[in-house]
Amino acid sequence: MITHDALALEPWAMRETRLDLEMLARSESCFALSNGHIGLRGNLDEGDPHGIPGSYLNGFYELLPLPHSETKYGDPEAVQVVVNVTDGKIMRLLVDDEPLDIRYGQLLSHERVLDLRAGVLRRTVDWVSPAGKRVRVHSTRLVSLVQRSVAAIFYEVEAVDEDVRVVVQSELVANEPPPANAHDPRAAVSLTAPLHSQLARNRDLAAILVHSTAASRLLMAAAMDHMIEGPPGTDASSESFEDEARVTVAADLARGERLRVGKLIAYSWSGQRSQPAIADQVRAALSEAMHTGWDGLLAAQRGYLDDFWARADVEIDGDTELQSAVRISMFHCLQAAARAEQRAIPAKGLTGPGYDGHTFWDTESFVLPMLTYTIPDAARDALRWRQDTLGLARDRATELGLEGAAFPWRTISGQECSGYWPAGTAAFHINADIADAVVRYQNAVEDPDFERGTGLELLAATARLWRSLGHHDAAGSFRIDGVTGPDEYSAIADNNIYTNLMAQRNLLAAADAVERFSDRAVELGIDPEEAASWRDAAAAMVVPYDADLGVHSQAEAFTKHQLWDFEGTSSDRYPLLLHFPYFDLYRKQVVKQADLVLALHLRGDAFSDEEKARDFDYYEALTVRDSSLSACTQAVIAAEVGHLELAHDYFGEASLIDVDDIEHNTGDGLHIASLGGSWLAAVAGFGGMRDHDGSLTFKPRLPRELTRMTFGVSFRGRQLRVEVKQRNATYALRGGEPIDLSHHGEQFRLTAHRSQTHRIPPLAARAAPRQPQGRAPLRRQGQR
Amino acid sequence: MITHDALALEPWAMRETRLDLEMLARSESCFALSNGHIGLRGNLDEGDPHGIPGSYLNGFYELLPLPHSETKYGDPEAVQVVVNVTDGKIMRLLVDDEPLDIRYGQLLSHERVLDLRAGVLRRTVDWVSPAGKRVRVHSTRLVSLVQRSVAAIFYEVEAVDEDVRVVVQSELVANEPPPANAHDPRAAVSLTAPLHSQLARNRDLAAILVHSTAASRLLMAAAMDHMIEGPPGTDASSESFEDEARVTVAADLARGERLRVGKLIAYSWSGQRSQPAIADQVRAALSEAMHTGWDGLLAAQRGYLDDFWARADVEIDGDTELQSAVRISMFHCLQAAARAEQRAIPAKGLTGPGYDGHTFWDTESFVLPMLTYTIPDAARDALRWRQDTLGLARDRATELGLEGAAFPWRTISGQECSGYWPAGTAAFHINADIADAVVRYQNAVEDPDFERGTGLELLAATARLWRSLGHHDAAGSFRIDGVTGPDEYSAIADNNIYTNLMAQRNLLAAADAVERFSDRAVELGIDPEEAASWRDAAAAMVVPYDADLGVHSQAEAFTKHQLWDFEGTSSDRYPLLLHFPYFDLYRKQVVKQADLVLALHLRGDAFSDEEKARDFDYYEALTVRDSSLSACTQAVIAAEVGHLELAHDYFGEASLIDVDDIEHNTGDGLHIASLGGSWLAAVAGFGGMRDHDGSLTFKPRLPRELTRMTFGVSFRGRQLRVEVKQRNATYALRGGEPIDLSHHGEQFRLTAHRSQTHRIPPLAARAAPRQPQGRAPLRRQGQR
Repeated sequence: MITHDALALEPWAMRETRLDLEMLARSESCFALSNGHIGLRGNLDEGDPHGIPGSYLNGFYELLPLPHSETKYGDPEAVQVVVNVTDGKIMRLLVDDEPLDIRYGQLLSHERVLDLRAGVLRRTVDWVSPAGKRVRVHSTRLVSLVQRSVAAIFYEVEAVDEDVRVVVQSELVANEPPPANAHDPRAAVSLTAPLHSQLARNRDLAAILVHSTAASRLLMAAAMDHMIEGPPGTDASSESFEDEARVTVAADLARGERLRVGKLIAYSWSGQRSQPAIADQVRAALSEAMHTGWDGLLAAQRGYLDDFWARADVEIDGDTELQSAVRISMFHCLQAAARAEQRAIPAKGLTGPGYDGHTFWDTESFVLPMLTYTIPDAARDALRWRQDTLGLARDRATELGLEGAAFPWRTISGQECSGYWPAGTAAFHINADIADAVVRYQNAVEDPDFERGTGLELLAATARLWRSLGHHDAAGSFRIDGVTGPDEYSAIADNNIYTNLMAQRNLLAAADAVERFSDRAVELGIDPEEAASWRDAAAAMVVPYDADLGVHSQAEAFTKHQLWDFEGTSSDRYPLLLHFPYFDLYRKQVVKQADLVLALHLRGDAFSDEEKARDFDYYEALTVRDSSLSACTQAVIAAEVGHLELAHDYFGEASLIDVDDIEHNTGDGLHIASLGGSWLAAVAGFGGMRDHDGSLTFKPRLPRELTRMTFGVSFRGRQLRVEVKQRNATYALRGGEPIDLSHHGEQFRLTAHRSQTHRIPPLAARAAPRQPQGRAPLRRQGQR
Repeated sequence: MITHDALALEPWAMRETRLDLEMLARSESCFALSNGHIGLRGNLDEGDPHGIPGSYLNGFYELLPLPHSETKYGDPEAVQVVVNVTDGKIMRLLVDDEPLDIRYGQLLSHERVLDLRAGVLRRTVDWVSPAGKRVRVHSTRLVSLVQRSVAAIFYEVEAVDEDVRVVVQSELVANEPPPANAHDPRAAVSLTAPLHSQLARNRDLAAILVHSTAASRLLMAAAMDHMIEGPPGTDASSESFEDEARVTVAADLARGERLRVGKLIAYSWSGQRSQPAIADQVRAALSEAMHTGWDGLLAAQRGYLDDFWARADVEIDGDTELQSAVRISMFHCLQAAARAEQRAIPAKGLTGPGYDGHTFWDTESFVLPMLTYTIPDAARDALRWRQDTLGLARDRATELGLEGAAFPWRTISGQECSGYWPAGTAAFHINADIADAVVRYQNAVEDPDFERGTGLELLAATARLWRSLGHHDAAGSFRIDGVTGPDEYSAIADNNIYTNLMAQRNLLAAADAVERFSDRAVELGIDPEEAASWRDAAAAMVVPYDADLGVHSQAEAFTKHQLWDFEGTSSDRYPLLLHFPYFDLYRKQVVKQADLVLALHLRGDAFSDEEKARDFDYYEALTVRDSSLSACTQAVIAAEVGHLELAHDYFGEASLIDVDDIEHNTGDGLHIASLGGSWLAAVAGFGGMRDHDGSLTFKPRLPRELTRMTFGVSFRGRQLRVEVKQRNATYALRGGEPIDLSHHGEQFRLTAHRSQTHRIPPLAARAAPRQPQGRAPLRRQGQR
């Protein structure tokens, strides 16, 4: 299964047993550490060789002009691009006279392990220099989930066979040259040296560099301090220059002796605070980390993760690879979000420069579900970030001639950065996706302050958007014309079913919120008439259906369009967008990613079981999965309509997307949404969990090969644990008030510490659906 | 009416009686001279001041990279941009020590006259230098319609009050700096100094400059020679440098004495021929022109135009301004096309840099009608140019995954240069427009070689495109989904009615051509089965109709879309595309330019009279006329359905678009299509001429204010003249075989030299239609 034979998936770890230089960029993404605020790619300690050097601070970007072939009203003029900030990861080693570089000398062994419970990346190198000197290097790297501004490296070098002179250079390096072969020449060229030195200081074993950006006018600081343990005579000194700072440690190691360097790194940035304030902030964070110490940081990291896994772990018996993959997926989602704290969660997290570091609807629709039910505070913070950008979204709506707020399709700090409006501005569904995430959070967490504040504001602003974007036709139906749904192989269509159904939920939820917080609604200028008009629009919403075919239509007229010639499309023509013009994709029946099928999931309450089954089969035959935002949703609905083996296949694909590099671009960063979707495939797929109306319902069911699956859900302050087997499911509550749940349509009340086991009804046989030729997912059946 | 009080429209001339520096660019366009090969803007002889300096050679361009905000398959990577070539117009004058510059000293009078019968631009300047020296300058400029490579200037300076020393510098200047305030910074910056010197020579009173372009790798040459007549002691010398050549004439003029300088200029360019060949070509052209002499060039020019006006003149009694405007319009169309000879006819002709010098569908749909019936050879040559680019169009179709040929939306030499595919690539109707022009030409001219060659090839290649672009749905209807019609405020729509009906004609005409030339069709690889499939598709073509409203729909679902809020759109928000995003325009009922209404004209055979009347009224209320390609068509159909005063208004707008600068961008060049549409408003509008099935039909009818209109039509080798009055129309044939015509539905046979007068039936009263608020055309009623 795994195409990379050096990568072993273990229950609680991802282990790389040898170094494959061809796959450096991919492993840098897979081994990236992050806490949602700081992100460090898994670059080798010594910096070289690398695929893409990368250190990121959430929200820190530079602005580049956005070129347009023809100037059009409403096109953004600039694009925000994530910056590779000052690199604090670098630990260079000189062995006698030669630098440790794994491309030279003899690499006896090289192992890296991402430890999902310890929250660290460990590396062991056994290397013989070209001159024959052997050293063993152990390094452990962490980005603290507890101390948000802090990363740390413990670096140990040992003389193995004979005495060696070693020098360790611990560095801060700004403006690392971008890789020469970056495939986006614009970003690569323009972001050469984006950082301008403001301050460079060193003293004793500590140093600090402060830089600014030219166009975005942001300030950032990076600082480091060290703890050194070496044989007598070990020397250390520091120096600093505009774009580099260095602490140099020299030691003569007798055979078997070790030099240990503990490095603590602190980062900070701001668009508001002054240079001295920023510099002091990192100095303070560093002092705190020094005070905590390396062992203290390690212990806190493990404690944070023990708590997370106790709540959230998904256990899978019967597919060990999938067991590992789903945990790796959850770990990376946690890393992307844990301490983002009112900054965006980018599509790639902080693991690479892909999509310029932008955030899309991925966050709300694919990452927030897992966060909502496992670390709800992170979900809340992500939505508060949206609230923080409401002013910009309102301005954008005004610019577009609309009411309410129009959130950006892609952005770092809230401004629209999409240069292709048919798949950007027109994808208004992102606003309903945000509203849906609000509703989900509000259902799952008792948080009245949020509901009255963030929730009401976001729901009302997006409802206003929908009300002004749609209109009633002569027959009284409410139409939303000329928009783009999730499927990016269609665009500018009338009444996209996903958009309409999600807008419907948005309008109703906003009207409910206005009713609940009528005093606050008045302050926001919303009167009952406006809320009533939202309900009216929701009630009259067009839901396109093709009576001839007996299936819903992804958008009006979609099912009348020509079928894509799948038989005539060879496998090397995928992804289609690289080989066919959009005009051709848009006008034919071919689906890039779940669109109507995502509506079957998120608005499952709007479809009968029979409709879901028919719709899924019809669209399954059209869906080519050229997007990473599809397999997980197909897994969820395949499971619901009874294609359990197919669901298993899609679950595998969603989970292994990066480990197996299925989209061939993991090197640019991880597909965080697909990894979040991996959790959805488990919990909403095989667990059958839904939350359509504020209460949780389950329809658990496993494919043949899986003997057992468990998952945990935080819900309204309680911890729920579900264990699914082939014939029954067991529900347990760890404390708190009883809770009303549903199992395959049967209501039951679950009380703390009294687990209940329910029988899973047998499944009616259904013929397996077809996929487009060559686009079926890899079969997991018999994988292991 | 005319907002420029210095501009007088005379029956056979446009006269500017004083110089308005604010309107320099506009007058440079209006006074531009061209023969379709060379174009010289009406820049002042002395070069400064200018709006936009401009000299153009048809087909001579430079390539610039075309930036895209997001890279998409099929997007062109480079754009062709017209080059301001070596300027041969410049005649600088030094009066004693001071240069003639009308911004200094005292301008006693300044007059320019464009003489439509002589085909020259005359200028008279009466100027007193800051030092008090008065001179009178007469210049006459022509671009020869007979000697294609030649332009000429006769320049005369007279000492009025006292003796003066004068120096005339006659120049060739390459790489004139572009105007600082060019509104497209990309084009302006990048086209600074596009010409690279290859040769610079001078001898006696002659000089030559040869330059090349860097990216497009084209060569051009400009040469000049002179005839000088001055008082004894007049000196002349020449010099040349990389980017300039100069002949300097110095004379001491006694009061009343004159210095006369006749300047002949020759141009040539090539992408194939060598530098010596190009240089020799202009030298030869210059020799021929010197041999012909100034008086000979003038006489030939008048002869050419006498012939044209005798065939083509449109006389209008009752609106003297319109009389003049329609002749100016026809003159500029003639200039744009006369000697283009298998090069494109750009949207701005060769009068300015607007639209980067590109050609669109304007040529076939708005300019070729007039050419076909007045100078048919020019129409033939324009279509042969399309044939010459068939290879590129076939390649483009292949790139787009289609059969046949896909002609570029905008281009100079045949490569697609549109960077915004929803209003470029998707506007496939251009292919049917080309086919329609072929059919029109073939009906109007007996030219079997053309039919068998150019005609068959163009018709078959475009029919193949349509057959592969559309598909039969389950019910057997032939659909063309996801394309853009003429109305650029809609895009990517299913079954645009104009596109479908024009494709239908295209498919049938191609099938007919294959039948007529079956031997040649076999050589082109077309068998009877393929032609039959074209007829099948044509027969099954979807024509969207809204039964509830009782009108045709511009595209499927169009009439269900929200109506644009015209009442809420103030006049300063037009043109809408500068103030609203495309997403909003596309999804609402608002029409930029005639689309369905153009189908009512060109495919009038597909609609009943009642349908035309209802459709026109419905779309009239939605059409904002933000394009110059609309008023003429609205004039034609308004006349047909009986809104004669409204037709008169639109006729005025189409004709006066540049003289009145209605679109506020005449400075960038003339709107050649609108000027061609002026002829259509007369002949197809008030003349009611149609050619749906190979024979000419007329339904002439005049608005109240016009007492008489005449026009001439060349048809199958005969000259037809039609005189329309309020109550009857008279048809006359100047020679040749009798011809069968139709007058208001009644067939009659017209014999040479026996004119026939037919009564015009009375018109049933119809209520005037509404236009969007503030978008009614200016009323001509009572103008004069």
